[in-house]
Amino acid sequence: MTNSYAIAVLPGDGIGPEVVGCALEVLDAAEERFGFSTDRSTFAAGANHYLETGELFDAVEAQLRDKQAILFGSMGDPRVTPGILERGFILEMRQRFQQAANVRPVRLYPGVPTPIAELTPERCEMVIVRENTEGAYVGRGSTVHAGTPNAVAMQESLNTHAGIERVVDFAFRLALGRRKKLTLCHKTNILVAAGQLWQQVVAEVGARYPEVEVDYVHVDAMCFHLPLTPERFDVVVTDNLFGDIITDLGAVIQGGLGVATSANLNLDGSAPSMFEAIHGSAPDIAGKGWANPAGAILSLALMLGHLGEGEAARAVEAATVEVLGSLPSLAGADMGASTSELGSRIAAIVREGRA
Amino acid sequence: MTNSYAIAVLPGDGIGPEVVGCALEVLDAAEERFGFSTDRSTFAAGANHYLETGELFDAVEAQLRDKQAILFGSMGDPRVTPGILERGFILEMRQRFQQAANVRPVRLYPGVPTPIAELTPERCEMVIVRENTEGAYVGRGSTVHAGTPNAVAMQESLNTHAGIERVVDFAFRLALGRRKKLTLCHKTNILVAAGQLWQQVVAEVGARYPEVEVDYVHVDAMCFHLPLTPERFDVVVTDNLFGDIITDLGAVIQGGLGVATSANLNLDGSAPSMFEAIHGSAPDIAGKGWANPAGAILSLALMLGHLGEGEAARAVEAATVEVLGSLPSLAGADMGASTSELGSRIAAIVREGRA
Ligand SMILES: CC(C)[C@H](C(=O)O)[C@@H](O)C(=O)O
Ligand SMILES: CC(C)[C@H](C(=O)O)[C@@H](O)C(=O)O
Repeated sequence: MTNSYAIAVLPGDGIGPEVVGCALEVLDAAEERFGFSTDRSTFAAGANHYLETGELFDAVEAQLRDKQAILFGSMGDPRVTPGILERGFILEMRQRFQQAANVRPVRLYPGVPTPIAELTPERCEMVIVRENTEGAYVGRGSTVHAGTPNAVAMQESLNTHAGIERVVDFAFRLALGRRKKLTLCHKTNILVAAGQLWQQVVAEVGARYPEVEVDYVHVDAMCFHLPLTPERFDVVVTDNLFGDIITDLGAVIQGGLGVATSANLNLDGSAPSMFEAIHGSAPDIAGKGWANPAGAILSLALMLGHLGEGEAARAVEAATVEVLGSLPSLAGADMGASTSELGSRIAAIVREGRA
Repeated sequence: MTNSYAIAVLPGDGIGPEVVGCALEVLDAAEERFGFSTDRSTFAAGANHYLETGELFDAVEAQLRDKQAILFGSMGDPRVTPGILERGFILEMRQRFQQAANVRPVRLYPGVPTPIAELTPERCEMVIVRENTEGAYVGRGSTVHAGTPNAVAMQESLNTHAGIERVVDFAFRLALGRRKKLTLCHKTNILVAAGQLWQQVVAEVGARYPEVEVDYVHVDAMCFHLPLTPERFDVVVTDNLFGDIITDLGAVIQGGLGVATSANLNLDGSAPSMFEAIHGSAPDIAGKGWANPAGAILSLALMLGHLGEGEAARAVEAATVEVLGSLPSLAGADMGASTSELGSRIAAIVREGRA
């Protein structure tokens, strides 16, 4: 009897469908080689669908909920007011499905050019774990005297012990299986209330993981430590807003948004986890074959690992890394091959067991 | 009759006194050459002073208030709980003296090594203007059920039309005298209340400066635009917390914290402005002669410009840039000269009119 997994596929907008198409071709190859299968349901979601129907996450929530994982492309289109899709779909999914941990590996793969001088793959191998459901992302704010010179806007960051604890515990467990170091990134000297709660939870949870060394770095200092001394980091745990910022910096270091990937993990099994490249929909290059499918294919690898297909996950990652390392440029017209050619190349390596 | 200026000098902790000492030597040279004078009052402030007396900003506020400018070293010491000096002195000064704009030039000087591959000085010449008195730095937050598993911490960001307007207007005026481009950096798709107020004020104020082109970049996207396409930016305006983060990234790009400098400007003449390098007190290297005084000396240049001694400001900057460009390394044991030697070298160039 072969394992079978029910997955939802949301290609989304712009380059989303192209790169997700590549990921599915690689998934075919992995199924063939490793003898499992998937039952894939594709959902129309994103800007076009919203413009036609007005539908956002609400409309698919029930159908997505019984899937074992969600493979997500990208969303966004100049015709939709910024914020609508982000809040109405992506954040809504993260919160309703309690995808508590946004996990972003930051690895410089061999042969991949980094914009940071003298950085080598051995020095850059970390995972950033971002709290994914609260903080400044709760969307609470209010304005008095709007539209007048006396306007005051308040924006709130809500941080709960429970919300922090689950992601911090996850980060400690992750560190335990790695180099056993956890770094909290925050701005505790200024954001005192939130900062104290984060520090306290890290201390409490850390007491359960005495083997793991705990470190702390302010978010502003992260801007020089990440590019200049990445070897300092094994697992970094941080809040939603700081995580949004520093993971993009992490992506730059590892070669760019085209290479970076993420898992939005539900940690209690109450709803599916979601896997996405971290690049956006890049409408300017959609349809040109210039998008690098690596981010999406690496998100497939994370999904396979999550589903328990560890061997397949490793093969997909290795094949992607091999092809990435051979490219003259990581995106655009001079990538040396089109999006779909790269997808097929990676799929072939997986299928033929060359990785 | 020569111009004379009453300035306050706060050397502070760690490497602060060393680098401020260099700045004062350069100031002597500038006075000699350009024929102005300063009346300098030095104040003990910082960790040692706090540990001895318990005194923070309160204790010196009245004496500082009647000065024309403040030259500030750095504060911080492992013996003082993080946050005490930051909030009790630095933030207190910024708020009480209404130093509304934190101005940080990000320039890659010729000959200065940057960690960003292929970055050239022509491509990196911007000023980041950070709102310096409100946002998440108002220090308002509260916690319920502290110390229990039900704890919830709320942290507020307060943004006023008046506070945003003054710094945005300053940024537009700055852009008008430069390449006429202003970029707002925020996270408007998530922080809706604060983001809308910022966008609205930029639109309102921008209507008064029709020659200035307005652009917008999300703070997370800033992490790749700053290092990879810095030529996109002329003047960047942003809120207090985002500014704290992206200016450190700016410092990395221009060669490191040792080179970066900042002005904390009071824009209405109600209190003195303050000028500081952006590096910290670096207690680990204090007294070793390994600190680069460039940040402090460049902050002196900003101060001289602010006082109206434009020629002296330009000479001090040029001399600093010349010496910076000749160093084998920007800090530490292999800088090629000690802190004080570098100060003397820069002072000599200023005195002899070689810059
Ligand atoms: C699209 C946007 C809502 C999102 C975020 O801010 O979290 C993105 O930047 C990310 O990091 O996944
Ligand atoms: C020392 C600290 C309070 C300060 C800040 O957060 O503003 C520093 O990081 C800065 O950027 O000037």
